Amino acid sequence: MKRDKYGIVVKPNSNKAEKIAEKVIDLLKNQGINPLIEYETKQSYKSFSSYEEFKMENNPPEKIIVIGGDGTLLRAVIRIKNNNSIFMSIRAGKRGFLLDVEEYEIENRVLDFIENRYALVEYPRLLPIFNQEEGSCAMNDIVIFTADGSLVKLIVNYENNKIYSIDGDGVVISTTIGSTAYSLSAGGPIIDPRLNAIVIAPLNPVQLHIRPVVLPYNGLITIESKEDSGSYYINIDGQEKIHGKSKSLLQVKPCKYVAKIARFNWWDNYYERLFNRLLTYW
Amino acid sequence: MKRDKYGIVVKPNSNKAEKIAEKVIDLLKNQGINPLIEYETKQSYKSFSSYEEFKMENNPPEKIIVIGGDGTLLRAVIRIKNNNSIFMSIRAGKRGFLLDVEEYEIENRVLDFIENRYALVEYPRLLPIFNQEEGSCAMNDIVIFTADGSLVKLIVNYENNKIYSIDGDGVVISTTIGSTAYSLSAGGPIIDPRLNAIVIAPLNPVQLHIRPVVLPYNGLITIESKEDSGSYYINIDGQEKIHGKSKSLLQVKPCKYVAKIARFNWWDNYYERLFNRLLTYW
Amino acid sequence: MKRDKYGIVVKPNSNKAEKIAEKVIDLLKNQGINPLIEYETKQSYKSFSSYEEFKMENNPPEKIIVIGGDGTLLRAVIRIKNNNSIFMSIRAGKRGFLLDVEEYEIENRVLDFIENRYALVEYPRLLPIFNQEEGSCAMNDIVIFTADGSLVKLIVNYENNKIYSIDGDGVVISTTIGSTAYSLSAGGPIIDPRLNAIVIAPLNPVQLHIRPVVLPYNGLITIESKEDSGSYYINIDGQEKIHGKSKSLLQVKPCKYVAKIARFNWWDNYYERLFNRLLTYW
Amino acid sequence: MKRDKYGIVVKPNSNKAEKIAEKVIDLLKNQGINPLIEYETKQSYKSFSSYEEFKMENNPPEKIIVIGGDGTLLRAVIRIKNNNSIFMSIRAGKRGFLLDVEEYEIENRVLDFIENRYALVEYPRLLPIFNQEEGSCAMNDIVIFTADGSLVKLIVNYENNKIYSIDGDGVVISTTIGSTAYSLSAGGPIIDPRLNAIVIAPLNPVQLHIRPVVLPYNGLITIESKEDSGSYYINIDGQEKIHGKSKSLLQVKPCKYVAKIARFNWWDNYYERLFNRLLTYW
Repeated sequence: MKRDKYGIVVKPNSNKAEKIAEKVIDLLKNQGINPLIEYETKQSYKSFSSYEEFKMENNPPEKIIVIGGDGTLLRAVIRIKNNNSIFMSIRAGKRGFLLDVEEYEIENRVLDFIENRYALVEYPRLLPIFNQEEGSCAMNDIVIFTADGSLVKLIVNYENNKIYSIDGDGVVISTTIGSTAYSLSAGGPIIDPRLNAIVIAPLNPVQLHIRPVVLPYNGLITIESKEDSGSYYINIDGQEKIHGKSKSLLQVKPCKYVAKIARFNWWDNYYERLFNRLLTYW
Repeated sequence: MKRDKYGIVVKPNSNKAEKIAEKVIDLLKNQGINPLIEYETKQSYKSFSSYEEFKMENNPPEKIIVIGGDGTLLRAVIRIKNNNSIFMSIRAGKRGFLLDVEEYEIENRVLDFIENRYALVEYPRLLPIFNQEEGSCAMNDIVIFTADGSLVKLIVNYENNKIYSIDGDGVVISTTIGSTAYSLSAGGPIIDPRLNAIVIAPLNPVQLHIRPVVLPYNGLITIESKEDSGSYYINIDGQEKIHGKSKSLLQVKPCKYVAKIARFNWWDNYYERLFNRLLTYW
Repeated sequence: MKRDKYGIVVKPNSNKAEKIAEKVIDLLKNQGINPLIEYETKQSYKSFSSYEEFKMENNPPEKIIVIGGDGTLLRAVIRIKNNNSIFMSIRAGKRGFLLDVEEYEIENRVLDFIENRYALVEYPRLLPIFNQEEGSCAMNDIVIFTADGSLVKLIVNYENNKIYSIDGDGVVISTTIGSTAYSLSAGGPIIDPRLNAIVIAPLNPVQLHIRPVVLPYNGLITIESKEDSGSYYINIDGQEKIHGKSKSLLQVKPCKYVAKIARFNWWDNYYERLFNRLLTYW
Repeated sequence: MKRDKYGIVVKPNSNKAEKIAEKVIDLLKNQGINPLIEYETKQSYKSFSSYEEFKMENNPPEKIIVIGGDGTLLRAVIRIKNNNSIFMSIRAGKRGFLLDVEEYEIENRVLDFIENRYALVEYPRLLPIFNQEEGSCAMNDIVIFTADGSLVKLIVNYENNKIYSIDGDGVVISTTIGSTAYSLSAGGPIIDPRLNAIVIAPLNPVQLHIRPVVLPYNGLITIESKEDSGSYYINIDGQEKIHGKSKSLLQVKPCKYVAKIARFNWWDNYYERLFNRLLTYW
């Protein structure tokens, strides 16, 4: 029987994340598994130099354990170009809502992960197409953001029907899971992950009467920048950027490749955990 | 072949609505149809006294033409206890987003209605159950609202998981179509009617970090009022009220009976019409 | 030399407040002071029945110690019709931002109060005049609020210039200190108490583009209710109510009588204390 | 008797502004006044090449007529380093709230300006000091804004007392007149220009419970960027930028030099004009 391969991705420059990673590696070895270490993780930590490496873009293993914060997970997921890898996420640090495994429970959860005792949650992602060129898929959000503080002027359409114009700092297009991140700070609602939806939230618009809009995930969003718009960039999950100018066209549609994350206690008290996190960030 | 019966509901005390109603009655008669007039409409307008009457609660005809504003439609729909009637809505007055037929196009649309040339849009409704007793179904929203300005203290749950506590003026639970009404004024997002969703929006909460939440339509919402809560009422579509006190339980779940509305140009420029309406209300 | 008289006001039905009051009375007696007990406080607590009583409205003593929450202080202050009494406020209970003395420091602060070691902070109040009849002055806010959930339609003017129309649940007119209370939940800003200002905040308005406005304290605010407005009440500091109908006129202007409160550590970390309180309310 | 000198500043690349400028020049000549043309205006329009020039920074005339939009006025005012010039502002274009003279009334207003028939309104400005170096004074606002979309982490203090931490896109510090501009889009209140106040509004903060704060104009605001803050720039009236990094200190305090603007109908219906402008921007 072919055995799954396991990869490890660790937040760089973090003593805490490194220690957790060492513990996870030991747990895997105890089960006879020799993990691969992700390329950049290996660059960052000398202690992992003896392990075989992998790159997220080319040959990701079937099972990947991410150790760090939300950014570490997003950075790993954004590079995935297929549907084959399953992520487990361990929180190392004060914050991080996307990561559900806490340090104290690592032993049990790593074993659960190996023996497939988890709920596999598939996170829909969003594909940006800018001036006909495809970018990486976003798990959280795609943000159009003023490059220099000048007014960005956009027309937002859904399925070829105009929603509204936005003259402001830009706009956020967010998935359900992303609705708890930047979109929320921008005044967007929280969208339950069981809904197949996206949210569009304007960023500090001059048009004071416009509001966030929640739309079906499956439709096509098109955002035109007007001729007299300031320049901007398109920010994908806070990880990748595309520079944009006036008279351009951003299309956003469902990504063929979901993010697959093994969850152990995701649904228990989902909203209590969420609002607790929001409350304790200050 | 059995012919559909037609009923007419008119906003009371409105010259404009009365004139449109007279025109609609003429159009129906020209097609050999003798309409029924709704009971309260008959009370309000002497000119309709010769027509047969019907009550929304008992024996509504298969096809009902509503003439007035959003309130007129909501008042008619809230009394419907089955799925058998189809509504056509004609706007009489300055405002009204739920009503899509304008005065100038009455001839064509009434004919379309008779000859079944329309899109039948089914609006999901919400059933309130207060302390185990069922109320009328809401097409727009169910609102818990302080009865006397004192703090209402609520715990909001979805599918038996806590979302958050609200100490404030109350809470709105809104359908997708209702998301463009009171919920919007309370800071809620606009939800596309193609989504099977509801939105919960707190009303002026003391807890400054809580936000509107969008949830799947099919789940069970339960709202408990705490022991030290001020008294409140539950407002269904702004048409019916239930008085509530502390230590009570409101459950909200899908209503068996949808509202069926014949739409003629509903989807054309849905959002442009919506934001235009929002903009011109001042 | 004439000695100041001391009065005590205690939140009713609170074991904690009663105990603190007993301690305060002992401290006063140790200094040779025989306090008066406020009329309603005496009704609520049998243990104080042997003391002489006073009424806030008639003959308040020069120095009054309030023990309870924000409501206890507001209820005492609203009855004051002159500028002669100085309040000291002791917090008994979880919440209360207006009350600055904590239980642990009672000994020192009561002595400070007797020996005039405090900063005397004068809180400007607002006088409501409804259809030409004067009401009680508000220390926090004057709120126009829908009586039954129907739309209240108002025109807000300042110094006889129109600001805007509000169709919604009503409006809050708040002092600087009141800006941290209900007005804040309604979307209003926090106004530094060193500013001589008031804030007007609309309550869930249909007009989505209107915003809170901060104005000089000294001007005249007039709020007209339109002919087709729903009925409402005017709520003064959450303590007194006036019923209002359409075609009425509320005027709000500076009150001749300020609230004088002895503060011991009011300015130290004012904003840190404030945001901490906001954060821990959930 | 020494006669005032007159200067003209025109929005570049605008046929409409050029035509209005030609008319204004004719009106001045009819009164025996030979105006100076601002340096950049001369570069932009060949038709003005025969006039004597001036630079805003060096030798601005006593009276300056600005023709264009809000940006044209802000760009002129930001360069003024003394209190000696009085501006008159003529609107050329659809928008512009700061400019009160309309095209149709130019004849009368230019004559009024020459003959000193106007209300002289003095607009307080804000002086930014970044890492001990003074920048230009702002008439509208000083904005700290993320340079690349990464989280800016700030601590905001007033008079050496902490207000709150902001982790987000940045912060706006706005004058009263600036409260109707960017600060308003960011959720800030409108501050009446008769108040001597500033407003601090956080930009999309992670801390959901923080709110705009209105403070006395005369105090010292200090904003520290934390060690782990993303880089940012400081934007002064949208006209000048300073690049900033983590562990830096921005101080903002009253500017010695106000902006003096001759107003002809500024106070008539100030709020009606304002909300009308807000409403018609879409």
